[in-house]
Amino acid sequence: MCNGSLPPNVTNATFGVALDAFRKALGGAFVVTSSDGLAAYLDPFAPGDAGQHAASAALIPASVDDIRAVLRIANQYHIPLWTVSTGRNFAYGGAAPRVAGSVVLDLKRMNQILEVDETLSYALVEPGVSYFDLYQHLMARQSALWLDPPAAGWGSVVGNTLERGFGTTPYGDHAAMQCGMEVVLANGDVVRTGMGAMRDSRSWQVFKAGFGPSYDGIFMQSNFGIVTKMGMWLMPRPAGFRLCHFKFRHDGDLPAIIDTMRPLRLDETIQSQVVVEHAVRWAAGVSTRSQWYKGPGPMPDTAIDAMAKTLGIGRWNMRFCLYGPEDLVAARLRVIERAFSAIADARLDANAWMPATTMPEGGGDQSQVGVPGMAAFQLLNWRGGTGAHVDFSPVCPPTGRDALAQYHLVRTRAADFGFDYYGGFTAGPRHMHHIFAAIFNKDDPVQTEAAHALLATLIEQCGQAGYGQYRTHLDYMDRAAAQYDFNDHALMRLSEAIKLALDPQGILSPGKQGIGGTRFTP
Amino acid sequence: MCNGSLPPNVTNATFGVALDAFRKALGGAFVVTSSDGLAAYLDPFAPGDAGQHAASAALIPASVDDIRAVLRIANQYHIPLWTVSTGRNFAYGGAAPRVAGSVVLDLKRMNQILEVDETLSYALVEPGVSYFDLYQHLMARQSALWLDPPAAGWGSVVGNTLERGFGTTPYGDHAAMQCGMEVVLANGDVVRTGMGAMRDSRSWQVFKAGFGPSYDGIFMQSNFGIVTKMGMWLMPRPAGFRLCHFKFRHDGDLPAIIDTMRPLRLDETIQSQVVVEHAVRWAAGVSTRSQWYKGPGPMPDTAIDAMAKTLGIGRWNMRFCLYGPEDLVAARLRVIERAFSAIADARLDANAWMPATTMPEGGGDQSQVGVPGMAAFQLLNWRGGTGAHVDFSPVCPPTGRDALAQYHLVRTRAADFGFDYYGGFTAGPRHMHHIFAAIFNKDDPVQTEAAHALLATLIEQCGQAGYGQYRTHLDYMDRAAAQYDFNDHALMRLSEAIKLALDPQGILSPGKQGIGGTRFTP
Repeated sequence: MCNGSLPPNVTNATFGVALDAFRKALGGAFVVTSSDGLAAYLDPFAPGDAGQHAASAALIPASVDDIRAVLRIANQYHIPLWTVSTGRNFAYGGAAPRVAGSVVLDLKRMNQILEVDETLSYALVEPGVSYFDLYQHLMARQSALWLDPPAAGWGSVVGNTLERGFGTTPYGDHAAMQCGMEVVLANGDVVRTGMGAMRDSRSWQVFKAGFGPSYDGIFMQSNFGIVTKMGMWLMPRPAGFRLCHFKFRHDGDLPAIIDTMRPLRLDETIQSQVVVEHAVRWAAGVSTRSQWYKGPGPMPDTAIDAMAKTLGIGRWNMRFCLYGPEDLVAARLRVIERAFSAIADARLDANAWMPATTMPEGGGDQSQVGVPGMAAFQLLNWRGGTGAHVDFSPVCPPTGRDALAQYHLVRTRAADFGFDYYGGFTAGPRHMHHIFAAIFNKDDPVQTEAAHALLATLIEQCGQAGYGQYRTHLDYMDRAAAQYDFNDHALMRLSEAIKLALDPQGILSPGKQGIGGTRFTP
Repeated sequence: MCNGSLPPNVTNATFGVALDAFRKALGGAFVVTSSDGLAAYLDPFAPGDAGQHAASAALIPASVDDIRAVLRIANQYHIPLWTVSTGRNFAYGGAAPRVAGSVVLDLKRMNQILEVDETLSYALVEPGVSYFDLYQHLMARQSALWLDPPAAGWGSVVGNTLERGFGTTPYGDHAAMQCGMEVVLANGDVVRTGMGAMRDSRSWQVFKAGFGPSYDGIFMQSNFGIVTKMGMWLMPRPAGFRLCHFKFRHDGDLPAIIDTMRPLRLDETIQSQVVVEHAVRWAAGVSTRSQWYKGPGPMPDTAIDAMAKTLGIGRWNMRFCLYGPEDLVAARLRVIERAFSAIADARLDANAWMPATTMPEGGGDQSQVGVPGMAAFQLLNWRGGTGAHVDFSPVCPPTGRDALAQYHLVRTRAADFGFDYYGGFTAGPRHMHHIFAAIFNKDDPVQTEAAHALLATLIEQCGQAGYGQYRTHLDYMDRAAAQYDFNDHALMRLSEAIKLALDPQGILSPGKQGIGGTRFTP
């Protein structure tokens, strides 16, 4: 069964009984079975047949009690449930399930911002709350707190964080800024993690660890439970800020850039995440490819150089933001400029320091001052046609040697399959993630197939070089998980043991990150 | 059985067979059964009968293979194993097991420093490595990395971190600075977490999360596995530093201190952990109680004021350290001084900025520049006799209101039982932990019993006020865990489900943090 009309190993009759039970529990309006309704749950950028990830139905609960009712029915009839917060992460599969025929459990109606604490700088939110929602809420109450926006502001705060998304402020490692969860287990039990495990705790959103083992991490990129509330730390609005953009002229500058940046990020002279991106990625935000190159195959270096010159950008571009009082920001920038003066032809563009009540004008820069946007979608126009992309996301140690190795490997393989190197690195204090997007016209089956083949090749070859991905599209979950092979895949045995203990029927998101797929996968 | 001569529910004959098997696996020298040998595994500061936590034997493996052999035997004969790295945390039970008659698994021979990476600033260590060991190793190789010492430098890096210990540098939240583990499960399987799950990974110690669920947190304060390797992030030596000590004259200053400090810690103007400690705690580091007060009951305010005046300290004392180039440190301190100028009679003592190659002289201050010591043990002399202490460690949101509530509650109850308020708060960016030590003469049964009763009272009454502990002594694990009562103790049900899945015989550290004790507890 690949057409999504039924869950695997469930008969038409049984499914009908289950759907009736779901309708009784939620109301008919919140059980989606029409093909029009289910179209919203198809993978919007599928690098292949979207039917391979088609849902059989979608359920839209409004509460924890609704979820518990759904779980009772799903356990009874062995119905796999694929949970999404809002399903807006289009590069990794959107709202589509890993296993065709799964029923999507869409938490978009659970969209309350339960608490914003101005003193301790956090929010407690439900899964249906988007970054736009939270931003509007903070604006409306004239909050002195900033959120950290991901690439696309329509995403769910909970969903993005559970998938370990990143932004570009000092709070850019979303999973690291999460504190406290409420989780519904497959058996319907409702658990609060950390200090939330105490009734009336004063510390649920301030101290992650709690007493005894900490569980938040096992519910990330996971199918062990359904997260229904989550605490997120927010950044106190600084006195002011200064947006900085270093432009590096030479393709070969990459190792020196990374090795110069690393110590400054490690000791937090640079507080924000640092984005080091290739000219093509910058250009795709402000132009289309045909303005620069119309020949066959990937853009050659000469065309990239000419494009960079015209746009006034570097072959590599490093963006970051400094925050705080004017003299502290100035002292930081002096240290940074001194360090980068060693790289020939490097140029710095930096706004003057401005107080944080004033927002800078325009563009992607706003994400570093807490303003969510949708500028990331601009890349869909790069190549022409019906733009789509699928992302390859290896973790990279922040050394020049590792960055160069990954860049060469990815750029070379991309060129083999006809793709430009649309990529860049985002650096925290001790790791980077490298994001490469294979941009394709999804109406062109040749490009689509090439994107698919390229991704599979990159996962294998980077794995052989010791580089694993931190996340991946539905199509590659098994393949990416298989790279984690220490002691004959001991980590997966641990995952499967815990999966069996917490979800013996295997109803929660089978196949998620390669876990618990056996019952329902063909 | 409380005398520790046999594991619970194990016959003398079976235990003899098991011990023979252990001797065959490890060599007779590494199976400790003599009462002299086992004395080292008694609770050194027991607030009651140390025999309640007496071990029946101790095993000292040298390798992962040794541990796997021990596990096979323990599973076969149902022998409970209480794992310690080195067992040096005397205030919480030392090397003694929760359940009398458990066999201590002492990892002190596994003491290799496997890797120090100067570029990415981390170490990979085995459980037997102490902070002193790691410090000597860093000194010997003229490393440019600092470790973060806990209160007592003889402790194990792995053990302290697994128990979520704290120090006072910017790396003072040890659990937050941990990255990547190797864990032996009860069935002998060897798992590496995070990126270490990939053979030849380049990122095991730089990216915590890995792909899929993250497990490191579930092996902290836990009995789900035996941690045999651990990555710890180290702090790049800064250009220089400035040690700061604010002295506040009035007992009632506490709320203003905390509310003034919080925003500076939140935005990392102050980079280090901030210690706010009461005059008695400071005084106990440099003097004995009888110098100041010889009357009955706890020291009265007049005596505390006189003592503080003589010692030149405040009723409350705030210590922190600023790191970086001289101008950046100066800019930070200007912001801090401006903020605290609002508190009347506050005085600042701060060293001049000094380059980080120069170590400051003397005392506890050295811990904020990465030098481990044993100064914390000075407190044992405070009260006279054979000094011991047992600690109460509630988590406190960093607000003046919460700090005041905890201080009042703890000081009042301490006085009820005849104890001085020896306490203070250590502040990270978004939470504090409050440590109160009940200091007693362990040769005095009245004092010992009073310490025990005080601890039990504090746990209950702080729990009722919404404050949970982040760790506790062996005697209070069940009681502290019981405070975590949301949804009728849902978190404990989750813990027990995972415990059963990973350790069905329940042989690993039964009773640890209240988990998995039923099989072996009376």
